[in-house]
Amino acid sequence: MNVRKISDSTIRRLSLYLNLLRELSTAGTELVSSAELADGSGTTAAKVRKDLSNFGSFGKRGQGYRVEELSRHIESIFGLQRPRRVALVGVGKIGSALLGYHDLPARGFEISVAFDIDPDKVGRSVFDVPVLSMEDLEHRLAADSIEIVILATPPSVAQDVANRVCSAGVGGILSFAASKLEPVEGLVVRWMDVALELEGLSFLISSTVNGSEEM
Amino acid sequence: MNVRKISDSTIRRLSLYLNLLRELSTAGTELVSSAELADGSGTTAAKVRKDLSNFGSFGKRGQGYRVEELSRHIESIFGLQRPRRVALVGVGKIGSALLGYHDLPARGFEISVAFDIDPDKVGRSVFDVPVLSMEDLEHRLAADSIEIVILATPPSVAQDVANRVCSAGVGGILSFAASKLEPVEGLVVRWMDVALELEGLSFLISSTVNGSEEM
Repeated sequence: MNVRKISDSTIRRLSLYLNLLRELSTAGTELVSSAELADGSGTTAAKVRKDLSNFGSFGKRGQGYRVEELSRHIESIFGLQRPRRVALVGVGKIGSALLGYHDLPARGFEISVAFDIDPDKVGRSVFDVPVLSMEDLEHRLAADSIEIVILATPPSVAQDVANRVCSAGVGGILSFAASKLEPVEGLVVRWMDVALELEGLSFLISSTVNGSEEM
Repeated sequence: MNVRKISDSTIRRLSLYLNLLRELSTAGTELVSSAELADGSGTTAAKVRKDLSNFGSFGKRGQGYRVEELSRHIESIFGLQRPRRVALVGVGKIGSALLGYHDLPARGFEISVAFDIDPDKVGRSVFDVPVLSMEDLEHRLAADSIEIVILATPPSVAQDVANRVCSAGVGGILSFAASKLEPVEGLVVRWMDVALELEGLSFLISSTVNGSEEM
């Protein structure tokens, strides 16, 4: 597959389809139509079919998709045939909250280890996840074959941590640190940016108001 | 403008342009080219021009954009000519961390009040933001003309809070609660979904690996 063609919006919708498929699977449903997937994901049936067609041929006309089969296929598109090995750097407020998120292991992301510089935190466990010293970072990331690091450090140390994490063979960072990171070869970075989401929300509110006024 | 045409990706890029423009403005730079905006936002000059052309005609060929003017214009697209009035519901770990984010007021989002059910929190201030009882929710949201609510409650009460918030005239919710909300007329909802971002990251890591193997 040519991954350059796959837009970020498609990936986001695939996440929504996957969530829905997992719910249907739990409920014992065996088949689902593109219209049902669309309804549950705020899109159209045509878009569902187009999104999925990027990755092969699924479902049968008039029969819909097999829930289990499509679910497993989207998991494999995400590289989630098995849980991803995840570590957390920075056990502050946001970091601690993430360690308690039941949603993450349920969706294939197991945080097995965390790191902090605070001697009061090192050696303890938070929600059963051991907190190690930053001195152990590279060694432990490599030993545990960690694939993704969640960065919840102060912005001032984010770049240094990103460089160290990359040198330990980690392929991706999800950053809560609102600071830019220099591109690092072989490292994929995504941001959780609250202000950016609020700007998007703010745009939609303005648009809605404008829309109403025009009527 | 026809807001239906504006994609989520365009809005995200506008946020990145705005960040860059604010930095340039602080540095005293007066003009910026579409190529420079593109470089700083990980896109192309053509995309920058196309994104901006959705909202009018800016810049002059060969001269670039006036930093201050374009910055103010994007702010107005986002409805951020003045700061948005924001409230927080749920002063747990994530909620408290958000109250301390300096980035939010700097980007036009002032959290002026917070709400929680915990009697130990009510009546106190967190990072100078007063925490009120949930009993005061509707009254205070309306009295303060709150436009956006950040929802950081347990998932189990998210829907109830969303309904109450909407009835108080709030136009948008940014939800950290990993639970679905029924669509409410007149209410725009966006989610901060860590698992969804991790899935996107996981996809990109898999794609990168696949890409390398093909070479």
